[in-house]
Amino acid sequence: MEATATLPVIEGFAADLVRQIRAQDTHGSWDRKSDLDLIEPFIVDKDKRRAIPIIGDPDPDTIWRLELFYGALCLTIERRCGRMVSPLMKLSHEGFGRMVLACGRLIVVNKALRDVHRFGFDSLEKLNAEAEKLIAQAIAMIEQFPAVADY
Amino acid sequence: MEATATLPVIEGFAADLVRQIRAQDTHGSWDRKSDLDLIEPFIVDKDKRRAIPIIGDPDPDTIWRLELFYGALCLTIERRCGRMVSPLMKLSHEGFGRMVLACGRLIVVNKALRDVHRFGFDSLEKLNAEAEKLIAQAIAMIEQFPAVADY
Repeated sequence: MEATATLPVIEGFAADLVRQIRAQDTHGSWDRKSDLDLIEPFIVDKDKRRAIPIIGDPDPDTIWRLELFYGALCLTIERRCGRMVSPLMKLSHEGFGRMVLACGRLIVVNKALRDVHRFGFDSLEKLNAEAEKLIAQAIAMIEQFPAVADY
Repeated sequence: MEATATLPVIEGFAADLVRQIRAQDTHGSWDRKSDLDLIEPFIVDKDKRRAIPIIGDPDPDTIWRLELFYGALCLTIERRCGRMVSPLMKLSHEGFGRMVLACGRLIVVNKALRDVHRFGFDSLEKLNAEAEKLIAQAIAMIEQFPAVADY
């Protein structure tokens, strides 16, 4: 007999991200939402992506999620390297822009943003993989140029 | 006999800034304005400054001038060091924020913004002095960390 579909386990960076989402919930209105409910809007698969129009301003909720994702990245990098990391975003109305994560005078992550309207990841695994890639890049930059990171 | 007040000469960075202002004027509507007319809103002396309230959102024209000032700084630094420099601004509604000028992966200028509502300089000389200070800082950073600037 086939088992019912098991719920995906939220681990790695996705778990950090859920903590950051809950930290925004100062009124406790999401207390009864599961971690999966909270991370679900970050998962935008191919079909969902196609259904989102990329005209007009990106949805404020999408921008909020984008900022949460990179904010949580900063905190994770911070925890791993012991230095403060802060995000700086430049976004045009058309959903194009640039996200920079800065540590001291060093830009540890430099990401071109496009089609921000459709921000999201194919799956939880893809979300974690992308985050780990960026975290590894950031740590490598800091290890390569510690004097700039500590400036 | 006393001579009439001589008009201030616009030179140094202020002249670069005027060129940038004129570059925005795609319809030629400022052709009959003198350089002094164009630079005048950047000069905010003590009395003028006091008269500007710092509640509510900063005036869009003020933000436009702030962006022009730092944009012109980027171009001047670029001309002097041969590397592209680009601005990134993070501004809250209350007129506080951060302006970063980035060259490659290096933050060459990192400026805390406050009371953006009152953005301006006491005099043309002060405008040039502040600009030269920031340009010198940026060039020194690039000379100290060329590998990061070229990353």
